[in-house]
Amino acid sequence: MTEHTTHPEHPVLDGRPLVAGRPVEGAAGTLLAVDPATGEEFGPPVGLVDAAQIEEATRAAEEAFDAFRSQTPAERSAFLRRIANEIEALGEELVDRAVRETGLPRARIEGERARTTGQLRMFAGIVERGDALQPRIDPALPDRTPLPRPDLRLVHIPIGPVAVFGASNFPLAFSTAGGDTASALAAGCPVVVKGHNAHPGTALLVGRAVAAAAAASGLPPGVFSVLFGEGNGIGRDLVSDPRIKAVAFTGSRAGGRALMDIAAARPEPVPVFAEMSSVNPVVILPGALAGEGATELADAYVASLTLGSGQFCTNPGAVFVPSGPDGDRFVARAAEGVARTAGRTMLTSGIAAAFGRGVDALEGHPGTETAARGEAGPGPNDPAPALFTVDQADFTADPRLQEEVFGAAGLLVRSPSPESLAEALEGMEGQLTATLHADAEDPDDLAAARALLPVLERRAGRVLFGGWPTGVEVAHAMVHGGPYPATSDSRGTSVGGLALHRFLRPVSYQGMPEALLPPALREDDPWGLDRRIDGVPAAPGSGGTGGDRR
Amino acid sequence: MTEHTTHPEHPVLDGRPLVAGRPVEGAAGTLLAVDPATGEEFGPPVGLVDAAQIEEATRAAEEAFDAFRSQTPAERSAFLRRIANEIEALGEELVDRAVRETGLPRARIEGERARTTGQLRMFAGIVERGDALQPRIDPALPDRTPLPRPDLRLVHIPIGPVAVFGASNFPLAFSTAGGDTASALAAGCPVVVKGHNAHPGTALLVGRAVAAAAAASGLPPGVFSVLFGEGNGIGRDLVSDPRIKAVAFTGSRAGGRALMDIAAARPEPVPVFAEMSSVNPVVILPGALAGEGATELADAYVASLTLGSGQFCTNPGAVFVPSGPDGDRFVARAAEGVARTAGRTMLTSGIAAAFGRGVDALEGHPGTETAARGEAGPGPNDPAPALFTVDQADFTADPRLQEEVFGAAGLLVRSPSPESLAEALEGMEGQLTATLHADAEDPDDLAAARALLPVLERRAGRVLFGGWPTGVEVAHAMVHGGPYPATSDSRGTSVGGLALHRFLRPVSYQGMPEALLPPALREDDPWGLDRRIDGVPAAPGSGGTGGDRR
Repeated sequence: MTEHTTHPEHPVLDGRPLVAGRPVEGAAGTLLAVDPATGEEFGPPVGLVDAAQIEEATRAAEEAFDAFRSQTPAERSAFLRRIANEIEALGEELVDRAVRETGLPRARIEGERARTTGQLRMFAGIVERGDALQPRIDPALPDRTPLPRPDLRLVHIPIGPVAVFGASNFPLAFSTAGGDTASALAAGCPVVVKGHNAHPGTALLVGRAVAAAAAASGLPPGVFSVLFGEGNGIGRDLVSDPRIKAVAFTGSRAGGRALMDIAAARPEPVPVFAEMSSVNPVVILPGALAGEGATELADAYVASLTLGSGQFCTNPGAVFVPSGPDGDRFVARAAEGVARTAGRTMLTSGIAAAFGRGVDALEGHPGTETAARGEAGPGPNDPAPALFTVDQADFTADPRLQEEVFGAAGLLVRSPSPESLAEALEGMEGQLTATLHADAEDPDDLAAARALLPVLERRAGRVLFGGWPTGVEVAHAMVHGGPYPATSDSRGTSVGGLALHRFLRPVSYQGMPEALLPPALREDDPWGLDRRIDGVPAAPGSGGTGGDRR
Repeated sequence: MTEHTTHPEHPVLDGRPLVAGRPVEGAAGTLLAVDPATGEEFGPPVGLVDAAQIEEATRAAEEAFDAFRSQTPAERSAFLRRIANEIEALGEELVDRAVRETGLPRARIEGERARTTGQLRMFAGIVERGDALQPRIDPALPDRTPLPRPDLRLVHIPIGPVAVFGASNFPLAFSTAGGDTASALAAGCPVVVKGHNAHPGTALLVGRAVAAAAAASGLPPGVFSVLFGEGNGIGRDLVSDPRIKAVAFTGSRAGGRALMDIAAARPEPVPVFAEMSSVNPVVILPGALAGEGATELADAYVASLTLGSGQFCTNPGAVFVPSGPDGDRFVARAAEGVARTAGRTMLTSGIAAAFGRGVDALEGHPGTETAARGEAGPGPNDPAPALFTVDQADFTADPRLQEEVFGAAGLLVRSPSPESLAEALEGMEGQLTATLHADAEDPDDLAAARALLPVLERRAGRVLFGGWPTGVEVAHAMVHGGPYPATSDSRGTSVGGLALHRFLRPVSYQGMPEALLPPALREDDPWGLDRRIDGVPAAPGSGGTGGDRR
């Protein structure tokens, strides 16, 4: 199977949603994209689907499931690589459209496109190795007493059609063909995307690329749909549809929780993987502020806080800064940096307004002081960055101060001592990340870090030493997850090699003849997989009845 | 660490529940065990806990968590083996008590004890290999452009304290120290057991064994509690307790769903692994009935149906039998077998009464015919086995006929043709098992089996070819799970090597100095683990910066 693209010409963006891979007229009206830099609406009008069209998409997904899941690892990985190629083939039309719909800088969109295609290719490699299958063989023990053991073989199969809700803040990497879609397709699950209304054209262009790759791979068109709707109705319809077997979402805590509740109340409840809310605590220990440390850290902090208008799930919203002169220097330097930073276009007027409300709440809180405000930008959605300080005792006393303010708003928590940090952190909710800044050569810092690590591990999916949490590497050892409310289920990750395991379930075959076994479990191991024999990793080619075991 | 037991003398069964490993007086009254063979109550009175005692147990579990999870693989596996030894050291007192409380035969209880200790030792071996940790290392790429890659390392950590609800039908293997407890402890999660009121003395004896093993292993006593309560209050209190981070349950569909709903409605929802309801469809294709096939299969079916009074989650409740003379022979022979089978003591009067209601409903259903009734036994809880037939069209038309009747009641679904089976099976709910009987040498059977396998895989956690679903092997390749309502989450299994993965979550470490890394991720690999480097399995001892990669 070759992997060249099927349409060297750009697809025409005509605004039609994709129901089972096919552009259709939306039955429930249209919406227009909005340029957040100007507030202007622009076309083409994007079609909104009705309940019947949603059901058409989920039915087609269910019908496509068996054909899709029966692909070989080579076929599946070729499909994923083809999607990456098709996205690249969209060329400047995609970048232009995404920039205009999101207000994000061109270089950022280009970088995000590379991340998106790189992510698809990473999953292609994982699928090609057969890692999703995790085959296990426990050979029959016919002579065992008192009872013989039957031949038992286990493989993982995809869970079924998945509903994916694209995120506003990553129009490519966490949206239509982002990490959730890529990992669900890698697992072998058909995907129905609820495209984000803040970048509908971008979603449709990418959707066309996925559909083209599916067609070129000979897959039934039901493996992929991109739908739009207004309000919460489409989400409710999709998540409560009995054909949908799992849900992936990136967005607000309220939105994620609403989908969790709908999924849990279904006659057949299904898992929801919602990535929602995190203030990503950063803990600075005294040693890290010595000498130039305070200045360098403060500059790096302001850069991370204001990057992309602060519109990252991993934005460092709360930083624990030691009391005392070094901490004061950090705060002063960070305040200077924020004061110098101009507001840049946020993704939507709704997000900019919510940011304004969050900043107002911090400003009006009796425990906080305003350390700095930047300047608002010239556009309608360019609010000024903001920096606040609060005493640790006040921070721990009021859970509202832990609520995420999505955007470039930082809270510096002044901590009386390293010994007081564990209790303060114990009081925090689940987080995507937690970061320690310390001098690894300083015995006091090291002892404090050792005492804090168990607390941070229990609260976060990723623990950093040094650096800043923004910038989530797409890698095999990445976790973009964490305890609630960071995500709905701490056992999953929405980025990295493990993401596809969310959409798999084990099936065991007992006494199955070779002719009926899935290829991954056959004695002759046609795909040359890493398998476990009696629970122990065995070299590829090891069958159940013998072979070269490690 | 040696593994001999700490109390060669039997513990005194005094009826006190174990709060954080310590026997305490129940603050909410007592209950008495009941001998289901006679209906007699017997002592000692077992203490019921109040809400404060439940909270004491969960608080102690939370406090014990960090110490417990920091055990080395060698220490954890020694603890699990010590539990097995302590259970064996209970000797005849445990067997006597379990037989009297459950009405199950002595040989069955002895076999179940061996299964329980074998299960603990299997998990000890898995833990010893470090399999629970699943370490991954993506080494830093300092020279990567446009941005360097940080060092990323991932390991799995336990999710937190787990509430386990023991099952009535396996007083040892699915109860106090059964598969859920063993796998949660293997993962490193403290466990609070809600002991089953149908075998409270058995639960306490086993609980004392676990607590003794914890004490001898130097663990904080909060790692294990066994509590009792009347009604649903204790379940609600436990599952809604914020310190409990996961729930494991084996029992009825109504009970499991109630716990799922409580867990989903918590401010911080937590996963529930409930193993609930299954009729375990068995599909007989024509080739399997040829010659002696019909007779042999019917005899094996009756044995499986009536084993242990049919009180198995994997009892074959619905068998699809071809229409025609061979199928008629199967039905007639099975009817003879059931008619000859006397009722044996069921676990409780409540279970016997529910069986009676289920049989009455099948008998009164307009679509069914009674093929046979056995004889009731002499005791108060020994209802007669029952066998019914129904046309496939009637079966598929009424979902009530798919409801599990817990006990020795079978439904033979007469199927007009192999071609009609896929649609009938498509209409069924999720199942723990699905079984195919076919002649693997018969091309027609083989073609029909090939067509049915995708349907069965989508509906069940274990697919058998030949044999009967009762008898769940404790093995690395076993799945005792399946789509709802068989379980609450098809991605888990409550039996087998993968069971402990339900209680683990991944944590990623970014840029962490060697001195602060968990041992499993250190460059010098002190535990000699199988790790993945850049996503690819590497030989033990391979560090992140190089080494012997496969």
